[in-house]
Amino acid sequence: MFHAEIIAIGSELLTPFRSDTNSLWLTAELNALGIEVRCKTTVGDDELFLEETLRDALRKSPLVITTGGLGPTEDDITRKVVARVMQRPLVLHPELLDRIRRQFADRGLTMPPNNERQALVPRDAEPLNNDYGTAPGLILREGDRMLVVLPGPPREMRPMFTAYVRPKLEPLAGAVRLRTRMLRVAGMGESQVDSLIAPIYTRYTNPTTTILINNTEVEVHFTAKAASDAEADALLDDLVGQVEEALGANVFSHRGETLEQVVGLRLAVRGYTIATAESCTGGLIAKRLTDVPGSSKYFREGVVAYANETKTRLLGVPAELLARQGAVSAEVAEAMAAGVKARAGTTIGVGVTGIAGPDGGTEDKPVGLVYVGVAGDFVVTHRKFILPGDRDRIRHLASQVALDLVRRTFLL
Amino acid sequence: MFHAEIIAIGSELLTPFRSDTNSLWLTAELNALGIEVRCKTTVGDDELFLEETLRDALRKSPLVITTGGLGPTEDDITRKVVARVMQRPLVLHPELLDRIRRQFADRGLTMPPNNERQALVPRDAEPLNNDYGTAPGLILREGDRMLVVLPGPPREMRPMFTAYVRPKLEPLAGAVRLRTRMLRVAGMGESQVDSLIAPIYTRYTNPTTTILINNTEVEVHFTAKAASDAEADALLDDLVGQVEEALGANVFSHRGETLEQVVGLRLAVRGYTIATAESCTGGLIAKRLTDVPGSSKYFREGVVAYANETKTRLLGVPAELLARQGAVSAEVAEAMAAGVKARAGTTIGVGVTGIAGPDGGTEDKPVGLVYVGVAGDFVVTHRKFILPGDRDRIRHLASQVALDLVRRTFLL
Repeated sequence: MFHAEIIAIGSELLTPFRSDTNSLWLTAELNALGIEVRCKTTVGDDELFLEETLRDALRKSPLVITTGGLGPTEDDITRKVVARVMQRPLVLHPELLDRIRRQFADRGLTMPPNNERQALVPRDAEPLNNDYGTAPGLILREGDRMLVVLPGPPREMRPMFTAYVRPKLEPLAGAVRLRTRMLRVAGMGESQVDSLIAPIYTRYTNPTTTILINNTEVEVHFTAKAASDAEADALLDDLVGQVEEALGANVFSHRGETLEQVVGLRLAVRGYTIATAESCTGGLIAKRLTDVPGSSKYFREGVVAYANETKTRLLGVPAELLARQGAVSAEVAEAMAAGVKARAGTTIGVGVTGIAGPDGGTEDKPVGLVYVGVAGDFVVTHRKFILPGDRDRIRHLASQVALDLVRRTFLL
Repeated sequence: MFHAEIIAIGSELLTPFRSDTNSLWLTAELNALGIEVRCKTTVGDDELFLEETLRDALRKSPLVITTGGLGPTEDDITRKVVARVMQRPLVLHPELLDRIRRQFADRGLTMPPNNERQALVPRDAEPLNNDYGTAPGLILREGDRMLVVLPGPPREMRPMFTAYVRPKLEPLAGAVRLRTRMLRVAGMGESQVDSLIAPIYTRYTNPTTTILINNTEVEVHFTAKAASDAEADALLDDLVGQVEEALGANVFSHRGETLEQVVGLRLAVRGYTIATAESCTGGLIAKRLTDVPGSSKYFREGVVAYANETKTRLLGVPAELLARQGAVSAEVAEAMAAGVKARAGTTIGVGVTGIAGPDGGTEDKPVGLVYVGVAGDFVVTHRKFILPGDRDRIRHLASQVALDLVRRTFLL
């Protein structure tokens, strides 16, 4: 299989605050063409380091793609170093210069002298038009090696790759097509999922199967290689079908949707409405439900009830119950769910109470203890969870199990 | 200045779904020691590629740190390739083997034969104990080069670096100390901040100044180099003091705190309480306020009022006002803030109404239009914003301007 390396250029990408993300998008694009990414490198605005990195990459890989370092300032060294590594002089490209001048003129500006630098091109390099900025890209070939030079800003890099680079890679990529699919799973940990489906996927070398944790969700990724998309899809259908069978209702998403999108879509399709009553999640469940465009169709209202008095006044949880069972209890979770449902007049109510920490835990009621209650017209029920991690993770997991309990109780 | 390279090892880090984040933490640690990171590379579980990458790195940099590939399976190739590159045979380290066996025994388990591999160490390498897992790390020296081999999971890698690697780097790092500081700014865009402070920071080459966007906040980072921490701090005090002066109350954080932490701390110090009434932000403001441990001291309750009926029933916004001004209006934002304050009996109420999109915009009231109202004992006021971006960004920006208006109105 044809393989590639990606080099991200820019000193800001070597700080503790930022990292290259262009390569994730490029990897998806290259994978879809059947091209594997074997190595990714980040270097600063440092001529010697970039020169060595480029030489090393071209030695190891037939396709090297760089992003960044094409701006008009002294710091932007990519053009100069590429010319040196490929042993070609930089020559001024008159058409490119005209184009850049025109881009400034169109906005009523005069091109600053600095920008002339952007029309310098290594001899015999093919310039790539930048439809969203002034920095042109480059394609250089040397024997069986190909070097693609792209700008750093994603809004310039992505359309340039799509319009001018992908068509040139399609014939090179050749006979292999790569197709991917993904399942998202709730209600099981990574190792539970693995022990359930490993007996299936280990019988296949194509498609390959990878289990990942993304935030609080387990994702199962499948990648198939074949001579055509149809063949790759058939391979996926076979394996993914068996895995779906094994995981059953624990799979909540087959096309990359989030849990809140799945819950929202099914609420909308059934004409149901929902209201939330949250304590330890502090509004996160309402926030996730309303992350979805069009959620006003089914989301009516949410109450974040931190104070016990609020639980009584806005949700109708009896003060006596709070005193007897404590705010973190199965009974209160159910009363919150039933209370918000009744007052908001919705089809479904969901209530969450728990201890997110770091303080407030006791031996009986430790940090991570969470009760989720759900209420419908004919059912009020709850589940108890002991969730791992820090405050942030416990809160996110609590929102996940709450949305999942709504899905399992009302929306399967 | 002494410099380093970081190599992340693992095929999952070359997919479109995941990227190496260990290097960000390591970069902060190395920078604090006065060691610059000049290059970062990610390679898969691919012996030949890793071998070439290691050789190239050791040629270019006196310190090379790898993370990952130390597990007990065939895929985990780091030990083997390191031994080959350093031309040392792998030998079984009896004490390490004992330690790994004991770690299993302590959990009532028998060590699987696979894990014996983790006690193999290149000759003359110094093993590093793993206090949070079974994979030991390694330090190898060859002339003036140093190779540090760390496990991939952050909860194993970080404590190993802190306990066993940092003390060894401190003397090497030598005379240069690097100190950093960061200001967070609200209420201004990146370019506004830059035009205000560029006249100040461009007069300095040490400290260096970088302006970054982190989520919806503008961050100004400063880095000073000097022979001692005290000298570096003095350089920072001088420049940062002038920048703080220029930015005034727009700076909300001087030590890396988030806006919700700053608001929470100041509410707690003053003994104030707060309640939220949200429409377009859908619970995000309550979620951010309750992200902070101990927020139950000042956060009483939140209402997410999507439906107009909810705004009337739970917040007391007159139905007549909603009909006359529309739900997205200055009057309704103020009524929501005053209503939630009065009913919850808090010191402060905050209300947000707006159009997050993608649908629901009109010519008069476009997507991105957001009104924030705040109410205290002696003041009810509002601000109007037209916020850019997609639904997710508009909602996040709206939560940011709302928390910032609380800060500016009540907490300066």
